[in-house]
Amino acid sequence: MKNNGQLIVLSGPSGAGKDTILKRLLEQNKNLRLSVSATTRMPRPGETDGVDYHFISKEQFHAMLDQGKMLESAEYCENCYGTPREPIENWMSQGYDVILEIEVQGGSQIKKKCPDCASIFILPPSLSALEQRLRDRGTEDEQVIQKRLATARKEIAEAVHYDYEVINDTVENAVNQINHIICAEKHKVFRNADLIERMLTNA
Amino acid sequence: MKNNGQLIVLSGPSGAGKDTILKRLLEQNKNLRLSVSATTRMPRPGETDGVDYHFISKEQFHAMLDQGKMLESAEYCENCYGTPREPIENWMSQGYDVILEIEVQGGSQIKKKCPDCASIFILPPSLSALEQRLRDRGTEDEQVIQKRLATARKEIAEAVHYDYEVINDTVENAVNQINHIICAEKHKVFRNADLIERMLTNA
Repeated sequence: MKNNGQLIVLSGPSGAGKDTILKRLLEQNKNLRLSVSATTRMPRPGETDGVDYHFISKEQFHAMLDQGKMLESAEYCENCYGTPREPIENWMSQGYDVILEIEVQGGSQIKKKCPDCASIFILPPSLSALEQRLRDRGTEDEQVIQKRLATARKEIAEAVHYDYEVINDTVENAVNQINHIICAEKHKVFRNADLIERMLTNA
Repeated sequence: MKNNGQLIVLSGPSGAGKDTILKRLLEQNKNLRLSVSATTRMPRPGETDGVDYHFISKEQFHAMLDQGKMLESAEYCENCYGTPREPIENWMSQGYDVILEIEVQGGSQIKKKCPDCASIFILPPSLSALEQRLRDRGTEDEQVIQKRLATARKEIAEAVHYDYEVINDTVENAVNQINHIICAEKHKVFRNADLIERMLTNA
């Protein structure tokens, strides 16, 4: 049963625990590849080209954009960010599933271009739990925390446009649930149209 | 997180192993209830009312049909068969998931009335494997086997109208995959519309 890989879009507010979940998913699921975004901003200390981001010039970015080589793109603080289409398509044609972590506007762009992707929104157990997690980081002052919470509210309101929601009560639960979603999506009939035809032909 | 139960429709050709899968699913999944069909035919030896079927009179059947109390119905060999709506709705409102095994025409009627149900089609690994299983039963003569295979082909062609397909290569795999589908369906955003709203209200 030959299957093309599937595209999984993961979003959620800052502090919902997306990075931990993603790390665990990639450790457990050897058929899963992580899409790396491209950006025109300069690498920060410790960041590696091709791992954290593909660091490219503004000219390269706009050329890729013009050639339709970005699945989505956004500008933030005068820097461009985008999702290169080619590595995703290559992996998927080899049967790998590809996951990408993205904020809600980017997720919405991708859903429009790839309606067959499975979009998953990670929710905190509650807004107060999210606040607690942001405080526990101990890295941000009160003003930043309040701003992040306001943004989180707006993002959570966008969760209605996703296919699935997963509450990150424990990382283990959330990861299991996402694995079940990936498994279920593989069994969608529309992803296996040729299977039924082949079964009826190769009696 | 209060959740209404979901409705799961299971179909597949004779010999695909639906009964074994169903039995195992009900043993493993304590939140799952089995819908029992109603019929106007007489009970066969060993059949129990309310377990194998709800055995009812033609008058009762047609009264239920007229009152919209059947989710689907069919006539076969001058007997009526149908799926009573009320027990399914009661279970679902109590949070139970309800599964029903049904042939493809009935499955299609239910999908029209309950578009939110998850419909799963059980496939044999191949048509020749299906033929072998039918022969291994040793209960049917060649003519019956050929007739069942012809029917199976027609039914399998209808699988394209289902949401999911699951190949019964081993019962364990098939049951696991169906459990994953049930889990994934619970995380569909459209089934949890109130969750996001409550999260934003009960900060």
